[in-house]
Amino acid sequence: MTTITGAAKKRLEISDIIGGACVNQAVSIHGAVHSLRDMGGITFLTLRGRDGVVQCVCPPEVDLKGVSEECTAVVSGVVRAEERAPGGFEIAAAAAQVLSRPAAPLPVPVSRWKLGLNLDTELALRPLTLRNLRARSVFRVQEGIIRAFRDYLHGQGFTEIHTPKIVRAGAEGGSNIFRLDYFGRKAFLAQSPQFYKQMMVGVYERVFEAAPVFRAEKHSTARHLNEYTSLDLEMGYIDSFYDIMDMETGFLKHCFRLLRTEYAADLGRLGVALPELEEIPCVRFDEAKRRAAERYGYQIRDPYDLEPEEEHHIGLYAKEAWDSDFVFVTHYPGKKRPFYAMDDPEDPRYTLSFDLLYKGLEVTTGGARIHDYAAQVEKMERLGMRPEEFESCLMAHKYGLPPHGGLGLGLERLTMKLCALENVRYACLFPRDLNRLDP
Amino acid sequence: MTTITGAAKKRLEISDIIGGACVNQAVSIHGAVHSLRDMGGITFLTLRGRDGVVQCVCPPEVDLKGVSEECTAVVSGVVRAEERAPGGFEIAAAAAQVLSRPAAPLPVPVSRWKLGLNLDTELALRPLTLRNLRARSVFRVQEGIIRAFRDYLHGQGFTEIHTPKIVRAGAEGGSNIFRLDYFGRKAFLAQSPQFYKQMMVGVYERVFEAAPVFRAEKHSTARHLNEYTSLDLEMGYIDSFYDIMDMETGFLKHCFRLLRTEYAADLGRLGVALPELEEIPCVRFDEAKRRAAERYGYQIRDPYDLEPEEEHHIGLYAKEAWDSDFVFVTHYPGKKRPFYAMDDPEDPRYTLSFDLLYKGLEVTTGGARIHDYAAQVEKMERLGMRPEEFESCLMAHKYGLPPHGGLGLGLERLTMKLCALENVRYACLFPRDLNRLDP
Repeated sequence: MTTITGAAKKRLEISDIIGGACVNQAVSIHGAVHSLRDMGGITFLTLRGRDGVVQCVCPPEVDLKGVSEECTAVVSGVVRAEERAPGGFEIAAAAAQVLSRPAAPLPVPVSRWKLGLNLDTELALRPLTLRNLRARSVFRVQEGIIRAFRDYLHGQGFTEIHTPKIVRAGAEGGSNIFRLDYFGRKAFLAQSPQFYKQMMVGVYERVFEAAPVFRAEKHSTARHLNEYTSLDLEMGYIDSFYDIMDMETGFLKHCFRLLRTEYAADLGRLGVALPELEEIPCVRFDEAKRRAAERYGYQIRDPYDLEPEEEHHIGLYAKEAWDSDFVFVTHYPGKKRPFYAMDDPEDPRYTLSFDLLYKGLEVTTGGARIHDYAAQVEKMERLGMRPEEFESCLMAHKYGLPPHGGLGLGLERLTMKLCALENVRYACLFPRDLNRLDP
Repeated sequence: MTTITGAAKKRLEISDIIGGACVNQAVSIHGAVHSLRDMGGITFLTLRGRDGVVQCVCPPEVDLKGVSEECTAVVSGVVRAEERAPGGFEIAAAAAQVLSRPAAPLPVPVSRWKLGLNLDTELALRPLTLRNLRARSVFRVQEGIIRAFRDYLHGQGFTEIHTPKIVRAGAEGGSNIFRLDYFGRKAFLAQSPQFYKQMMVGVYERVFEAAPVFRAEKHSTARHLNEYTSLDLEMGYIDSFYDIMDMETGFLKHCFRLLRTEYAADLGRLGVALPELEEIPCVRFDEAKRRAAERYGYQIRDPYDLEPEEEHHIGLYAKEAWDSDFVFVTHYPGKKRPFYAMDDPEDPRYTLSFDLLYKGLEVTTGGARIHDYAAQVEKMERLGMRPEEFESCLMAHKYGLPPHGGLGLGLERLTMKLCALENVRYACLFPRDLNRLDP
């Protein structure tokens, strides 16, 4: 009988080499052939690993017959310092052993610094275009964001939850919900984990989830996806809905710290300079609208709505007036918020809620929720809803919930703005939109 | 203008009190009223927080009018050592301020040590029954498992990915797939991230995802869910498929370490003694079947299939012969594996694949995948599939992929066996099965 001990093998990484740890040592390292340049006898083979690329200089004695881009191989040789090489080190290759070969040459120049493709082509060839160093760095940064979200909340006493994506009722209402047949019953894909995270506040007080949500919106804009990753949190025993904004600000500061320390190479490749985040200005909805309209000289069309163009202007205002990429806009009108939003007792036309705008784009929606059963039922009836259809969603309210609130943050939108991408589709590995279901 | 600084408020936790940090100090602490016992004048109020319960002793002077179970409140008083109190400390209460009240008394005795409900009732009232201390500890352990998965893989150079759940084609084949209408086109819910994680091996070499998957199986057993959380990994540049089992074993060892250090209270509440995991025995499919049949005296019915009853016997055999709760069963017949499984070159009736059984239940399926485009197309054609329908899934193969393999681990199944639960539904917050879509 064999046994498996779980002893991880030591693998030599490209970062070890370009970090200078192996100079003048003989090494063998695997990777994909990122590019291949024959300089008349000597061939420069750039090997791509998960954490970077390294230049391998192959004299004619190294057999490169049948080696092409996107072959995978093990290159053996001696590491030497070479200031002209990317990273400052290269491998003087003695041999290259091919592990696998592509069946066809790449249809696009993956190894170029900028891909230079149009959006449709880049996304249609995503399994290949993601091999581009800058394209893949976007999703390393995205990993950093989600790690920071979990780490920070974990440190703040939150528990991670996993709630169902096939549901009996939508949380956000409206028609933008995907329907499916569930063993002969009508079911939906969750637009958000809203009901479930509220239920779980009754269990763990503070919960979070990072998971896909689904919106059947027929918008085709640069900021909408039909499936995205929502970073959700919900917290009980809040003193006010400002506690939720404080939690988000704490997360963002932690996120930037983590990205700076652990994702510097990816940020550098993307040319991203992270904002120095100390605090986030916070302004009421009506005041934000008024200030932006005055400063940029336009008329407010609808006092109870916030159009994308206005968000853009409020973001600009926050940058110019307060030197901040971020701004919390608070006290949204009840009309723009779902039934679970808590009304402002001082003016019930407004709610104790907020959006976070980042460079003029809404990346988060949050606020205090109604925790009292009678108050929630009353508001639903006032809005023409039938509370009896939401019996299981209101069970937690009926049998007791603390004052609470929470937020939902769109991972792809945050990634998009952080990496200065033009379209949210670039911030999603395999985006789903009106026309895109593949790959 | 207000600003938000993200300075987290210091909250007093119940674990601070029962950890002995506040003895003889005046404190105020929030929580839900878990139970209330009037002992003739003096009332024992048990306050439930996210991290435990604390006994509050309320003399008649403390106004408890209108206080009932599942009210939330802030209790003020002095902490004192009291060996008869749960945790060894209690609060001599001076005041209780109610924050919220339920609209109705609890329909089930949430504060009992064991709920004692049948499965249907417990799941129908899940928002309430999860408030039971033992029920909620299950999902703290589950959090520990998923944290360990991410932490371990992160340390091994894996990148986290997020792949679409609405897909154009199923990965696992067969009829057990949910269909939905996607803006007039036929689409499916992902049965696994298989194709996508293989594509991403071409990008990051090592990737993982922890996300929901969907199976429209019409089974109603104690081990099937129609939606579950799959812990998936895929790794390139493997020397053999044993590397994948090594990675899983390393994860499990890390997982048990993390649970022991950070989730001891929850394990204790559930009475779970974690196995001392040093190594996992590994046995071929045909040999495992033969050994179990010989030892437990039955005939092998189908040499190419493994029935649940046989899994149970192999698990029993591993425990008796090797004193192991875990056993890797390797070299599954090709008939039982999907088209992407790599055949064993030494005997192509079998594949370079494995299952991990834990106490006789399959919790993981994994193996080496075909990385060569021509070999993959040839196998698909041999199986009667049409490779042209999988063009985008095969793009990564066509343009080069390293030798690779991976696995998928069912989070709920692992939780179920670890916590010695009788039914996998107890290991899912809000399970989805043939009859259950709510809550």
